[in-house]
Amino acid sequence: MKIYLDCIPCFVRQALDAARFVTDDAIIHEQVVKQVLRMASYMDIRESPPVIGQQIHRLIRELVGLYDPYRQVKNRFNNEALKLYSKMRNYIIESANPLETAVRLAIAGNIIDFGVSSTLEKSALENTIRECLAGEFSDIQLKAFRQAVNDAEQILYLADNAGEIIFDRLLIERLPVEKVTVVVKGEPVINDATMEDALVAGLPQIVEVIDNGSDGPGTILQSCSEAFRIRFENADLIIAKGQGNYETLSDIGKNIFFILKAKCPVIAEDLGCEVGEMILRKNECFNEIVDLIQEGE
Amino acid sequence: MKIYLDCIPCFVRQALDAARFVTDDAIIHEQVVKQVLRMASYMDIRESPPVIGQQIHRLIRELVGLYDPYRQVKNRFNNEALKLYSKMRNYIIESANPLETAVRLAIAGNIIDFGVSSTLEKSALENTIRECLAGEFSDIQLKAFRQAVNDAEQILYLADNAGEIIFDRLLIERLPVEKVTVVVKGEPVINDATMEDALVAGLPQIVEVIDNGSDGPGTILQSCSEAFRIRFENADLIIAKGQGNYETLSDIGKNIFFILKAKCPVIAEDLGCEVGEMILRKNECFNEIVDLIQEGE
Repeated sequence: MKIYLDCIPCFVRQALDAARFVTDDAIIHEQVVKQVLRMASYMDIRESPPVIGQQIHRLIRELVGLYDPYRQVKNRFNNEALKLYSKMRNYIIESANPLETAVRLAIAGNIIDFGVSSTLEKSALENTIRECLAGEFSDIQLKAFRQAVNDAEQILYLADNAGEIIFDRLLIERLPVEKVTVVVKGEPVINDATMEDALVAGLPQIVEVIDNGSDGPGTILQSCSEAFRIRFENADLIIAKGQGNYETLSDIGKNIFFILKAKCPVIAEDLGCEVGEMILRKNECFNEIVDLIQEGE
Repeated sequence: MKIYLDCIPCFVRQALDAARFVTDDAIIHEQVVKQVLRMASYMDIRESPPVIGQQIHRLIRELVGLYDPYRQVKNRFNNEALKLYSKMRNYIIESANPLETAVRLAIAGNIIDFGVSSTLEKSALENTIRECLAGEFSDIQLKAFRQAVNDAEQILYLADNAGEIIFDRLLIERLPVEKVTVVVKGEPVINDATMEDALVAGLPQIVEVIDNGSDGPGTILQSCSEAFRIRFENADLIIAKGQGNYETLSDIGKNIFFILKAKCPVIAEDLGCEVGEMILRKNECFNEIVDLIQEGE
């Protein structure tokens, strides 16, 4: 997916959010916003939104003088999600279709995205859980997902945000954990999950967890470590959580299932869905490549 | 009211909207957005949002090469509002409290504001009318407003947007029209009403209509004509419609009633209300001045 000009106002807002997370000093808020405006006015908008976001958040971290401006808000949502964990696990165990319920809850967790909005409240998270448990959902995609999981030998689960990663754990528990490797970001960016959040979620006790070596808010392959790129290449199924991973991987010819909540109009338009919709979707780009190979045979 | 950094993402979005209203050329869209980003990065954020908006929209008009980029969308909402006019007029005539109903409808019309959102649909306008007719409303302010209208000798009604001006007509019809002068903008800016829109609304047939000589999206007194400023000074009651007029006049020591729908979080915070609330409010600044004078006597 390519960047749209509509993303730029959002970047400016993110800059202001990040500055406010770390200081009450209005002079610094103004400096951060103005420098981001200047940077954005010279950037190459043909890059994907996470590539631009990576550059902007590097500048923000430098200007506010903090390695991880969103750390507090990440801790807060890890704690909120942990409080809900047992209850959500019971929903899954007691449901008629545990894998489907786990996917629905993993999508609900994707509401914890400070790239899209910085004003999430606990009540909104609980409402989203309710909506995602009850909302419409594609049976066809779920069937394809179940089959892909059964067929796979090496599954990479690309995590998205802190807090959300607790919801991801619920889905990961329904997968063949011996085949699963969870991937977090190599460095802090927005509220994306890093190894610290994977530890809070207790993931290393049930699966292998690695980091991708990058501070991009998505999976920007050229910015990831060589070690991660090899794992990515070798995996025969990739489960990619959240908007950032969709934006960076939707044009990559791999067997990927995207799991997300379409939270902004730009993403919704690209996906051909309504804002707020639950998405579990196989990479269309991969389907096209498979079709081309089969036609050639 | 002073500008808040939160307004800047909105200015960037307005730039993109305006560019898209006039051309499908993505190169021009990008140029407009980037130039506005650059301008915003150097501007004095101590000015009020409409002062910044005035500068940005001058740049936008220059870049897109059109005197009035929003003309089409202004015509569209004038037409939509005209279709609703008779029905709304009947609501007022048949209601138990015609002045209150007229104020409610004038507030509903304030939803037609392309400074806040460019995606208004006819159905949203109709929903807003329904909500405003049924929603909670301050009796105290309405009583004060009725009294102020009865007491006044020279009333200036500062109109806000095209389309909305048809709704304003409904309220103006309930006022002592011989004492009322309606004021529109001197030059196009966003979808603010100019003389063309006052003519479409049929206002010159019932009241005096003047323009303020300015292209500011509000009432920036130092940018208005001398003729308007004299009228403003001499008026003993000013009815100021919309967010832009609130932003530019809330610190002026005049007898002003602001009528608007609080559509963005920045305005809502300043007013101490929720986003979406209906506002009919006497200028607090004027009350304070009157108190000071009375204390001195």
